[in-house]
Amino acid sequence: MTLNFGLLGAGRIGKVHAAAVAATPGARLAAVADAVPAAAEAIAAASGAEVRSVDAIMNARDIDAVLITTPTDMHADMIEQAARAGKPIFCEKPIDLSIPRVETCLATVRAQGVQLMIGFNRRFDPNFQEARRRIDAGQIGTVELVSIVSRDPGPPPLDYIARSGGLFRDMTIHDFDMARFLLGEEPVTVYAAASNLVDPKIGEAGDIDTASIVLTTKSGRICQISNSRRATYGYDQRIEVHGSKGMVSAENLRETTVEVATAAGYLRDPLMNFFMTRYTAAYRAEIGAFIEALKTKTPMSPSGEDGLKALLIAEGAYRSLKEGRAVPIDLG
Amino acid sequence: MTLNFGLLGAGRIGKVHAAAVAATPGARLAAVADAVPAAAEAIAAASGAEVRSVDAIMNARDIDAVLITTPTDMHADMIEQAARAGKPIFCEKPIDLSIPRVETCLATVRAQGVQLMIGFNRRFDPNFQEARRRIDAGQIGTVELVSIVSRDPGPPPLDYIARSGGLFRDMTIHDFDMARFLLGEEPVTVYAAASNLVDPKIGEAGDIDTASIVLTTKSGRICQISNSRRATYGYDQRIEVHGSKGMVSAENLRETTVEVATAAGYLRDPLMNFFMTRYTAAYRAEIGAFIEALKTKTPMSPSGEDGLKALLIAEGAYRSLKEGRAVPIDLG
Amino acid sequence: MTLNFGLLGAGRIGKVHAAAVAATPGARLAAVADAVPAAAEAIAAASGAEVRSVDAIMNARDIDAVLITTPTDMHADMIEQAARAGKPIFCEKPIDLSIPRVETCLATVRAQGVQLMIGFNRRFDPNFQEARRRIDAGQIGTVELVSIVSRDPGPPPLDYIARSGGLFRDMTIHDFDMARFLLGEEPVTVYAAASNLVDPKIGEAGDIDTASIVLTTKSGRICQISNSRRATYGYDQRIEVHGSKGMVSAENLRETTVEVATAAGYLRDPLMNFFMTRYTAAYRAEIGAFIEALKTKTPMSPSGEDGLKALLIAEGAYRSLKEGRAVPIDLG
Amino acid sequence: MTLNFGLLGAGRIGKVHAAAVAATPGARLAAVADAVPAAAEAIAAASGAEVRSVDAIMNARDIDAVLITTPTDMHADMIEQAARAGKPIFCEKPIDLSIPRVETCLATVRAQGVQLMIGFNRRFDPNFQEARRRIDAGQIGTVELVSIVSRDPGPPPLDYIARSGGLFRDMTIHDFDMARFLLGEEPVTVYAAASNLVDPKIGEAGDIDTASIVLTTKSGRICQISNSRRATYGYDQRIEVHGSKGMVSAENLRETTVEVATAAGYLRDPLMNFFMTRYTAAYRAEIGAFIEALKTKTPMSPSGEDGLKALLIAEGAYRSLKEGRAVPIDLG
Repeated sequence: MTLNFGLLGAGRIGKVHAAAVAATPGARLAAVADAVPAAAEAIAAASGAEVRSVDAIMNARDIDAVLITTPTDMHADMIEQAARAGKPIFCEKPIDLSIPRVETCLATVRAQGVQLMIGFNRRFDPNFQEARRRIDAGQIGTVELVSIVSRDPGPPPLDYIARSGGLFRDMTIHDFDMARFLLGEEPVTVYAAASNLVDPKIGEAGDIDTASIVLTTKSGRICQISNSRRATYGYDQRIEVHGSKGMVSAENLRETTVEVATAAGYLRDPLMNFFMTRYTAAYRAEIGAFIEALKTKTPMSPSGEDGLKALLIAEGAYRSLKEGRAVPIDLG
Repeated sequence: MTLNFGLLGAGRIGKVHAAAVAATPGARLAAVADAVPAAAEAIAAASGAEVRSVDAIMNARDIDAVLITTPTDMHADMIEQAARAGKPIFCEKPIDLSIPRVETCLATVRAQGVQLMIGFNRRFDPNFQEARRRIDAGQIGTVELVSIVSRDPGPPPLDYIARSGGLFRDMTIHDFDMARFLLGEEPVTVYAAASNLVDPKIGEAGDIDTASIVLTTKSGRICQISNSRRATYGYDQRIEVHGSKGMVSAENLRETTVEVATAAGYLRDPLMNFFMTRYTAAYRAEIGAFIEALKTKTPMSPSGEDGLKALLIAEGAYRSLKEGRAVPIDLG
Repeated sequence: MTLNFGLLGAGRIGKVHAAAVAATPGARLAAVADAVPAAAEAIAAASGAEVRSVDAIMNARDIDAVLITTPTDMHADMIEQAARAGKPIFCEKPIDLSIPRVETCLATVRAQGVQLMIGFNRRFDPNFQEARRRIDAGQIGTVELVSIVSRDPGPPPLDYIARSGGLFRDMTIHDFDMARFLLGEEPVTVYAAASNLVDPKIGEAGDIDTASIVLTTKSGRICQISNSRRATYGYDQRIEVHGSKGMVSAENLRETTVEVATAAGYLRDPLMNFFMTRYTAAYRAEIGAFIEALKTKTPMSPSGEDGLKALLIAEGAYRSLKEGRAVPIDLG
Repeated sequence: MTLNFGLLGAGRIGKVHAAAVAATPGARLAAVADAVPAAAEAIAAASGAEVRSVDAIMNARDIDAVLITTPTDMHADMIEQAARAGKPIFCEKPIDLSIPRVETCLATVRAQGVQLMIGFNRRFDPNFQEARRRIDAGQIGTVELVSIVSRDPGPPPLDYIARSGGLFRDMTIHDFDMARFLLGEEPVTVYAAASNLVDPKIGEAGDIDTASIVLTTKSGRICQISNSRRATYGYDQRIEVHGSKGMVSAENLRETTVEVATAAGYLRDPLMNFFMTRYTAAYRAEIGAFIEALKTKTPMSPSGEDGLKALLIAEGAYRSLKEGRAVPIDLG
């Protein structure tokens, strides 16, 4: 039996998921909707899907699940519409920038009893997954210190930044989720230090571009995150977890393994510098996990609550920044 | 316009190329033939191709090119049949184990004027390609010493070895082609030292499993190849080219970048240990190059002559082994 | 002309400096004092120095400079005695655990006009020095994010911990100095999170053993430090500096470059696990710099003020820990 | 009891050994001789040794052993003179360029019953020693393929080349010894391919500068050596041993662990480029082993016979080059 997907939002990330669906046996992109008809048509042409309206997809009998890849401000409404239509949902992060809005949205999802998965793709990166597997296998003992380095190759357009919710809600939110994924215990405090060093226009837009965040858990585990909106050497995505018996790390990815040695030294490739290329395998595995949970009707992970919790940490980080202290966060 | 391919041979490597065709926009697997109907049907089911007879594929108006992935002893006959049918041909290496047979086969191809590409997939590995690109860009100056390490994770079944043509024609042939790809000049002598160390049954079957080969070119460039039919740590595939201005190398691939540090040391993954996984990108790029040459009607590379030359080196290596000396090879 | 040194304190670190003096042309260990005669005699026997009393060394005409390597609580008194005797001074960190005591001590040194160098050996590590040189050469542009990983192989004896001044004054103090060395700007706030995870007895002794510290500078540069009193894989000492044009890092040291590859993976050595071995080159270079400044009568670095500033950051870190907020630090 | 050494030859390598003696407790350089008085005086001044004549050192009652570091053509005469004087001998490689001369020299040594050690310093490199230790510990099973990369940063002066005995006797001789050290079985054939690519003047002087050599043993183990007189990226010294259960390798050394990442990629240091720096630890350990064997009156290793065997392989390599075939070598 083939599962039929409806794609809501035919932008950059929509294309990524469309390709992931196409590459998965037993899955098919059946319909696509976008406010920009040409965008929807492009994906339709490449995948064999039909262009339909959002409502048509939501209410279609032949659509088994929806993928929400619209701009952020439409996520919560779409999740609720899909939930009411009884459709299982995959939605890109974040659910919404407003925590109350996220909470009412998740209440609707719970009331309707539909499955919901949030697109924290990095959990599905084979390297980070393997690191987690080693932790779960006890290879490093009890987790003590988690370190996440997460730096973008370059800042997004200024108009994107203006409506992004800011660094912590837009970019660090992935790291907050990764911190929870690796800490094995919920953070109870967050401290954030941040600056505007990359581009003064980012500061003028009210945002920051360079940050260091510290999370602590009840038992005393500590996580530090290092963020920048710009890394000249590529998309810097590393984790390291130090435990009572050892340490596990996952390194960056490069296009090739080539190294050139001359009198100047040994030169390796810079890092992959585009998130879609860097996380290709993760996007595939993420859609794979969504489909698997659909088929087995098992709880989805990362869940809507995971989405909410990452947002609560982001919100705490902003309070910390304002107050110059570590603030408590209550993730229940 | 979509190009339609006919696949002749539905074994392990046939599946790889079928998948590569499926992943290439503008290409479609239209038909598949195999002496084992179930094998052909499996590929047909996965790809939407029809199962047909070899003759039906060869003579079909709707087939634009054929992919020959049958056992080696059928390659030359199939190439000739396809050539006479006017079909462009992609054929797995080697064309045949007999040099005279290869020569008559290539004569037929030339006479018919069809395009022919031989499946030396490693030329398309992104790492080796990038190494070559650096050489071509002059980053290491003039090539002086080429080193190729090529070791399989484990030996093939004994019955395969018996009909394989032996280590040099079956396995080292890839390295002979890689040597030519990297040396930038034809080898003029070959010396081979070889042993039976991995499994005495391989020796009883008349073959060797461990070897070191040295090629020299007219201007004095030297290439050394290190082979084993078994490497406990995975599929060991490395190249290194030393030149007048520097050195370029391409390293092995691993499943993940994870490293675990404990009192025992720092432990990284063993190597990818399956050739299809290790060279997935290469197989895709190889079929991409075949399709590109089909579309542009340009000469294909690696050509039938490249296939013949690698085989001539293998033949020289066997003579060297017998005579205990470096033997001249004439690649024209 | 040979410079004659008097060594005050013949313990573990005293031996290291004695050996460094012995290995430096133009330098000679002339005298050694220790409360434990056997300790002084052992160094004397190995180096050809005489055993003398502290006072005798301080007042000797034939002693050109003193090296203070006694327990911490004697540092300040000895510095003052040497200063009054007009002897240039090399003193191990910290000057004292009490900031007022450090201040009066430094006032005496200034009043006497003698040279004083504090033993922050890591500044002289060839790797960290080279990293700093690359920063000074502009290779990474403006410094933005500094990351220091500093973990001991195992905790010191509990009785040492009890009188050590605590993790921040005893161990992290090196990292605070390294942070200043790399940031290129004084820190103005410090935030510390810390736990007792390694050994409950450390907590019972009132100390912590696991910590993450964040420093910020006026222009918005950020430094994070990751500490543990235990790392099963060795003495973990790494730095990384991210700037506007790139990143520079210096990795750990291992005993050998050996790697063993088996089906389990690729296994490298654990890290060097003893600070004296890890920093052998640094201790040599440190004494070399002291001698050079003696000869050229130029200001010494790290200075007494550097010692004070690192201690002020440590003191700030403790306040931060208590108050749960980032506290301002005024390094003038 | 302190051992007193007499140094015969105060050139570059003489200085290295003088420093190694000085750094060894229980050892003292007592006397030094050189045809160039200023050279002897320089070492004497630095070490406290006396300048004496060769004969005076040979016949001195207070000299426990001699270190022969003269030009090669004086080695055999000096060894014989020292042997007749009953002095244990450390001599730099090679004993002589002529095999018959080496044989008569070793016969004299045997007749006199004195200890003799040949300066194959690389056996004492901590990395190569550790690799050998792993092999002996069975970590890689039975040795099958040895690979040695040995490339100098740049060619020596032409007048040195003219009297060096040629690449194989001067430079590769170290690799022949390392091959024996790692193979665990004597080579029985040698094949050599070589070219003049680095500098035409080397060819005009009758020598080669680029080579690949293959050695085989009776049981079928194979060793390949890759040589060049020039490597722009430093002094390239690597080994790799592939066995039935795994592989062990030892990598090159660099001055620092620093890496700079920019848009151009990740740049590490070139290799250490001076043999004395690269092998500092090896030279120390070598003299340490000499002293240990002196003290314990145990057989020395590498022995005079090891020196002869390496030379016999070199001689075989030249015959191979001339005859274009693998030639048998009889190492007894």
